[in-house]
Amino acid sequence: MGPLRPWARLPLLAAAHLLALGMGAAMLQALEGPPALQLQAKLRAELAAFQADYGACLPPGALEELLAAALAAQLRGVSGWGNGSEAGNWDLPSALLFTASILTTTGYGYTAPLSAGGKAFCVVYAALGLPASLALLAALRHCLLPLLSRPGAWVAVQWQLAPASAALLQAAGLGLLVAGAFVLLPALVLWGLQGDCSLPGAIYFCFSSLSTIGLGDLLPGHGRGLHPALYRLGQLALLGYLLLGLLAMLLAVETFSELPQVRAVVKFFGSNGPLTAEDQSGIIGQEELALDTLPPSAAAPEQAPTC
Amino acid sequence: MGPLRPWARLPLLAAAHLLALGMGAAMLQALEGPPALQLQAKLRAELAAFQADYGACLPPGALEELLAAALAAQLRGVSGWGNGSEAGNWDLPSALLFTASILTTTGYGYTAPLSAGGKAFCVVYAALGLPASLALLAALRHCLLPLLSRPGAWVAVQWQLAPASAALLQAAGLGLLVAGAFVLLPALVLWGLQGDCSLPGAIYFCFSSLSTIGLGDLLPGHGRGLHPALYRLGQLALLGYLLLGLLAMLLAVETFSELPQVRAVVKFFGSNGPLTAEDQSGIIGQEELALDTLPPSAAAPEQAPTC
Repeated sequence: MGPLRPWARLPLLAAAHLLALGMGAAMLQALEGPPALQLQAKLRAELAAFQADYGACLPPGALEELLAAALAAQLRGVSGWGNGSEAGNWDLPSALLFTASILTTTGYGYTAPLSAGGKAFCVVYAALGLPASLALLAALRHCLLPLLSRPGAWVAVQWQLAPASAALLQAAGLGLLVAGAFVLLPALVLWGLQGDCSLPGAIYFCFSSLSTIGLGDLLPGHGRGLHPALYRLGQLALLGYLLLGLLAMLLAVETFSELPQVRAVVKFFGSNGPLTAEDQSGIIGQEELALDTLPPSAAAPEQAPTC
Repeated sequence: MGPLRPWARLPLLAAAHLLALGMGAAMLQALEGPPALQLQAKLRAELAAFQADYGACLPPGALEELLAAALAAQLRGVSGWGNGSEAGNWDLPSALLFTASILTTTGYGYTAPLSAGGKAFCVVYAALGLPASLALLAALRHCLLPLLSRPGAWVAVQWQLAPASAALLQAAGLGLLVAGAFVLLPALVLWGLQGDCSLPGAIYFCFSSLSTIGLGDLLPGHGRGLHPALYRLGQLALLGYLLLGLLAMLLAVETFSELPQVRAVVKFFGSNGPLTAEDQSGIIGQEELALDTLPPSAAAPEQAPTC
């Protein structure tokens, strides 16, 4: 196989991604297909047994109608259980959690707007709120990244490391810190507080929230009859977790994306020509100009902005 | 009120965001609270009527048990209806759509992994796949942004516009193009093809997907008894839409974020000191270095990489 032509790199990378998409799908099909079919078979057996036992006194279709109504209501986040004094899904803490899940693009979906007005409001709110959130995150990043580069600077001086190695070490450290403080620790807390949640399940939930994927299939404490005050506290904790977690994750991603090694990979796939010596010095030159992340050498600490 | 102290700007912006979060929540509470309570009351009335009419021949709790089983299964994406020959939720096209919703962080959640192995696989898959996707997107951006700046360059030359105005016009044009091609057009297609979906509903779904919020409450064609071939085609169309839409949206966001005006706003909130003339020239200097987006003046077209 000859050298990889520059113009071929990006299509190959894209093709590799599509292949990975397909392989992931095949893997999940193998892992999830059987359990899903089993659950479906079990449910159908229960339905059939119910019909067999009590179908005689039920008019045809009455049960199906009731089930359909209950299922449709659940899709909208509405439950038929509980006493009448509940505030429903849209009490202020729950609504706050919903708007936070919109603005962090997590979008759990266990509650969703029913009315046309609510849907329209969500679209407008997100269309205005998402750019504003991005601007806020950019400003926070502008303020916080120099602070985050100080440990790397100190380590670089102590251990006489090259700037590139120091940056890599710092990015790795930040990544581990975010993973520990924003996935592992909350998962441990969740697992400890909630009896029916396994540690892997808690990690799954925290990861799903932090990455803003937000599948919404597991929601801690939801409708489990917790003490109302505890449930509210949990909702507020989740709210803070969504907001702070997004910030922490973006800072980590930004730190990694500004590493010279990562930039080299991106340039490798994104350019049409071979990386020349000029390009490489260009990368380093840009790195020196990215004053935000490189450990300041002679630049005194008084230049680092305080927030 | 005196001049806004620099160190106060960022906390004020953050406070404004939290206020906006709260106001959005209050608005949704007002819009959605009543419909949700109405739906709940309706469902409870149906349950009560059912119990009243037929409860005599049902053992206590049997109906609740059945309903609970059906509702829990739906939370996992499993339905009790349909004939036995369905492939279930994890046939290859559906699994592909799921992995795509993971890697684009959309996370609809109408299907979710049941088994511990499936959940663990999702976490690992996302942990590896998301950074890889970010790298691919960065490489695509590196390749495509210069191409996108050509119309702006042409307009700037034709209309003798300053670089900053040309950049703004170009960003606005790109934003409108993305909104038209990736929200309005797909929404119109969806509305046309699907009888029970209103145009606002279709716009809501497209916006929710494109922004990667992915609430998952409205899913076109899902379980509506469409012709299988049409449903598959729709799934593939959605897959392409998720992947291309994310790319288009990121390119638009990147273009906007590199506008001098936006950078100035971010610097305004993120710095601790007033914008000095040095800072302003620093911004412009960085802009000149951001060769990706500024219309090339003397720089010949042969320098723009072709993909």
